[in-house]
Amino acid sequence: MRVALYQCPPLPLDVAGNLQRLGNIARQSKDVDLLVLPEMFLTGYNIGARAVAELAQTHDGDAAQQIAELAKTTNKAIVYGYPERGADGHIYNSVQLIDAHGKSLCNYRKTHLFGVLDHSMFSQGPDAFPVVELNGWKLGLLICYDLEFPENARRLALAGAELIVVPTANMVPYDFIADVTVRCRAFENQCFVAYANYCGHEGNIHYCGQSSIAAPNGRQVALAKQDETLIAATLEHPQLLAAKTANSYLADRRPELYNELTKR
Amino acid sequence: MRVALYQCPPLPLDVAGNLQRLGNIARQSKDVDLLVLPEMFLTGYNIGARAVAELAQTHDGDAAQQIAELAKTTNKAIVYGYPERGADGHIYNSVQLIDAHGKSLCNYRKTHLFGVLDHSMFSQGPDAFPVVELNGWKLGLLICYDLEFPENARRLALAGAELIVVPTANMVPYDFIADVTVRCRAFENQCFVAYANYCGHEGNIHYCGQSSIAAPNGRQVALAKQDETLIAATLEHPQLLAAKTANSYLADRRPELYNELTKR
Repeated sequence: MRVALYQCPPLPLDVAGNLQRLGNIARQSKDVDLLVLPEMFLTGYNIGARAVAELAQTHDGDAAQQIAELAKTTNKAIVYGYPERGADGHIYNSVQLIDAHGKSLCNYRKTHLFGVLDHSMFSQGPDAFPVVELNGWKLGLLICYDLEFPENARRLALAGAELIVVPTANMVPYDFIADVTVRCRAFENQCFVAYANYCGHEGNIHYCGQSSIAAPNGRQVALAKQDETLIAATLEHPQLLAAKTANSYLADRRPELYNELTKR
Repeated sequence: MRVALYQCPPLPLDVAGNLQRLGNIARQSKDVDLLVLPEMFLTGYNIGARAVAELAQTHDGDAAQQIAELAKTTNKAIVYGYPERGADGHIYNSVQLIDAHGKSLCNYRKTHLFGVLDHSMFSQGPDAFPVVELNGWKLGLLICYDLEFPENARRLALAGAELIVVPTANMVPYDFIADVTVRCRAFENQCFVAYANYCGHEGNIHYCGQSSIAAPNGRQVALAKQDETLIAATLEHPQLLAAKTANSYLADRRPELYNELTKR
């Protein structure tokens, strides 16, 4: 499966503009099976609670329908971040996976909100970490800060995830996460991690770029610098098998020792 | 607190020789408060089940008494690895912390055994991850493979550990752990991690060196290469506080979402 990440500066408050550049990049990347955009790609991330409330859409709203059509016409799956207006009236920081037939396979709501920024705009997501199948790959979703908690990637790996897709909006001075944490999560969970970040500035935020795809052996098989770019890698099942032959972390866990992790 | 790690080639089957070189290094490192030796330092690691059974000692046996005396005379705490004969008749891969008064503060038995090598020699340790106080620092112990499971370091951090001491016997081709995993554990748990490895060869094992002390901000404040060496760093409480101000991982966890981690 050929996976591409589009690292770009945010285009805040401009839904039409973001759909347009998504269309351009989807049409240009002809050999790609899965195209991943950053967190809150549809609207920009650092846009404030009022704008989020105005621009939030349901998971099957206008933007979702346009992206589904684009996925069909360009024959690729797309993962994108957006502010979701839930049926419960809450607004979530969500990502949605739409397959090449235009069907929504998965909608994930960020469970671990980051500081004042996230909390001022979003409600935290519920206890739902779906793992779905795409092109013969088991795929889980996380968003930005979620990945920094080893418990979340572990949960997806235990549910069988072979690829964890992580739209993010990671900023300076948190480069460490893009450089080290992403690789560590892939290695310890023996799966691929695709981490799609912004570059450039948005208000007082300076995004740190360094989008990457980390393989189960911990190596970065695709790595961006700080500029706008499309990076891609071809994921092969034998890479998973090789990692699980070299290490047997999931089999060697001792869950009976981990109860303290579930206590408040 | 000044912490030093002694990275050395193993001296297999020679308990007297290992006690002698421990004595030398303890006397030479005058400004050190805590001296850390690799996994199974007392006997070597890759020595086989028969030798382990012959050389195993109780936690208060001859070697422990000699090391306690050395700790007193050189005025430093010592963490060392050894094969422990338990009162239950089992043999464990253990590490013991003896303070500068010659008192045993903590004895930890490796819970996550590594492959055929560990399983052929040792019983797995029980559900006991003590956190003890040394020189005003809360300290937890893990051994080698234990650290590769994020659950174990997390458990110690949740119990208040500010420093996780990890005697190890990590070999090629697992350099990734020394380079990446150690830093990631320190960063995600906002504590220090001191990882004391062997260098050189032992039978068919080639140890990868790269002992290090990682700070709560993920930086290596001491780092060895592949040769025999003593590395050291001074740990300061403000470094912990700075990391906890920059990030609030432990506070932002959502334990109610982590139940899957405890299921077999």
